[in-house]
Amino acid sequence: MNRSRLSVRCCPSTACASITSMEHPSPIRPRDFAVYAPNKMGKSTIFRSERVMVGLNAFESGQEHALHAHEDMDKIYQVIEGRGLFLLEGDDVPMQAGVLLVAPAGAPHGIRNTGTERLLVLVILAPAP
Amino acid sequence: MNRSRLSVRCCPSTACASITSMEHPSPIRPRDFAVYAPNKMGKSTIFRSERVMVGLNAFESGQEHALHAHEDMDKIYQVIEGRGLFLLEGDDVPMQAGVLLVAPAGAPHGIRNTGTERLLVLVILAPAP
Repeated sequence: MNRSRLSVRCCPSTACASITSMEHPSPIRPRDFAVYAPNKMGKSTIFRSERVMVGLNAFESGQEHALHAHEDMDKIYQVIEGRGLFLLEGDDVPMQAGVLLVAPAGAPHGIRNTGTERLLVLVILAPAP
Repeated sequence: MNRSRLSVRCCPSTACASITSMEHPSPIRPRDFAVYAPNKMGKSTIFRSERVMVGLNAFESGQEHALHAHEDMDKIYQVIEGRGLFLLEGDDVPMQAGVLLVAPAGAPHGIRNTGTERLLVLVILAPAP
């Protein structure tokens, strides 16, 4: 089978995943790759090429990713589990599992877990950062 | 608010969506944009830029998207509802709502709805076709 090996993304923070290998295409459950951290949003990377990064943002209750924008990248959020707010420019919007949001390049966006449960969001950035 | 208008994708087939306008970033439920067709897989487009296309593939029971590959695009599938098979090279793999698959450029992939219910899959292609 034609499988590509994951370009592993390692980083020194304890809030980043240290996935050592994954072959694609392989069906996975995103939640199996979630990395939560006590002090800030956890990140993990499922796939990376020059064209796209597929990863997870994992929020304990109360954690957030503050409003920010990417000048030359489009971001797609798909909420896997939990609930909270999408932080948009002047307009915070409730969301929950099943909801999708596209933040085109230049559009400010962020996330806050306002719920009592964990919040897990699939994140796709094109091109990869 | 900094919102980008959807680049509308129209096509003559009845199996393609004719979404006339959508602003991003806006939280949506992907299923609200599903287009099913009696004779073949239905397609709809949620967002398109030069960097990425976000859309839906909608399968009535028994419908499929045959094994194929994209030479210069990575594809991400996220199953929204239903169940079926991911068609991979020599290896068809059961899947259902909640499952993610990344088909890197060059990797053959496809989908078949082997269930009795509708199958809806979020599809992301980078860069956009």
